Amino acid sequence: MTDQSSARIAAQFAFLTEADRLKSVLRATKLCDGSRFENTGEHSWHVALYALVMAEHAAKPVDVSRVIKMMLIHDLVEIDAGDTPIHSAAALDPALQAAEEQTAADRIFGLLPADQAADFRALWDEFEAAETDDAIFAKSIDRVQPVISNLETGGQSWLEYNVSRDQLEHRVGGKVSRGAPALWTALKQRLDLWFNAR
Amino acid sequence: MTDQSSARIAAQFAFLTEADRLKSVLRATKLCDGSRFENTGEHSWHVALYALVMAEHAAKPVDVSRVIKMMLIHDLVEIDAGDTPIHSAAALDPALQAAEEQTAADRIFGLLPADQAADFRALWDEFEAAETDDAIFAKSIDRVQPVISNLETGGQSWLEYNVSRDQLEHRVGGKVSRGAPALWTALKQRLDLWFNAR
Repeated sequence: MTDQSSARIAAQFAFLTEADRLKSVLRATKLCDGSRFENTGEHSWHVALYALVMAEHAAKPVDVSRVIKMMLIHDLVEIDAGDTPIHSAAALDPALQAAEEQTAADRIFGLLPADQAADFRALWDEFEAAETDDAIFAKSIDRVQPVISNLETGGQSWLEYNVSRDQLEHRVGGKVSRGAPALWTALKQRLDLWFNAR
Repeated sequence: MTDQSSARIAAQFAFLTEADRLKSVLRATKLCDGSRFENTGEHSWHVALYALVMAEHAAKPVDVSRVIKMMLIHDLVEIDAGDTPIHSAAALDPALQAAEEQTAADRIFGLLPADQAADFRALWDEFEAAETDDAIFAKSIDRVQPVISNLETGGQSWLEYNVSRDQLEHRVGGKVSRGAPALWTALKQRLDLWFNAR
């Protein structure tokens, strides 16, 4: 093994070891059985699996493999920037959050060898921009998964943040409808039942 | 939305909700910071990310997107069958473990619409058989990740199960060398240091 390939593998292991810390970032949503808060590592797995299963419902045809790769890396910046729950007050300053996430992306993707750092960063930038069909679908799936968790736990984070049906439509429904309209149609029925019974 | 597409989406959500339980299956390895045991949901994310980063080190060229999909679903059977640590005594009866996992695969993939159930099952069967280049690499990556966690935590599960350097070579080194020889070469240096210092 040359020194060069040895240094390359060492950089890749350093990145993957740093990524481990995402398992200690907690989100506002609990597991479906309500037993504890979800962490961002397992969330990233779950939304990648969601994308694999639900790709046929994308608004426009997507490359599911690219979407899955986006899902695997989409929240790595939370290692430095933390999770910002969409229903919390902190979510009201998107400019500050975006700046923190850019700095985090520089550091974390920068642990990789330069070619991979550039590839991963480009994919993450595409996800964040939410302009391509793949990214629009990825963003919608990222919003669908916590809706299901909330329905399973009896509305845990909606109750905690006092979320109205209109707020949910605005903060979640818009993104989901844009990328996966059939899924929002299916979810709306369950949401209307939950909010009407409240 | 037709009744048929509505039933299809309901089956897909049922599968994805059942998958959530993988976040409550604990493994024998701890997080890299030693704070708690890792669960199989976050492990599945981490090895998918490992595959994405390390694909260039595969013994033979692989389709990284297929390998990632394998990683996303490779441990779903643990929802019913539990995790069997490779260094524990329970790992000595592979026939019993395989039978339990087959039953689990029938039930869990069977929650999906029939076409997807067949696709996912075929991919999982391919992973288990470890005969194709994609599956051989996937199996090797699945073994690499806990080695790194153990090195980071000072050998936590090796100490707990009293694992020798020879046992590690036999149980882990063989599989890793077969699918990703350069990674085992890199790991061996760190392993020798750890075992020699013991």
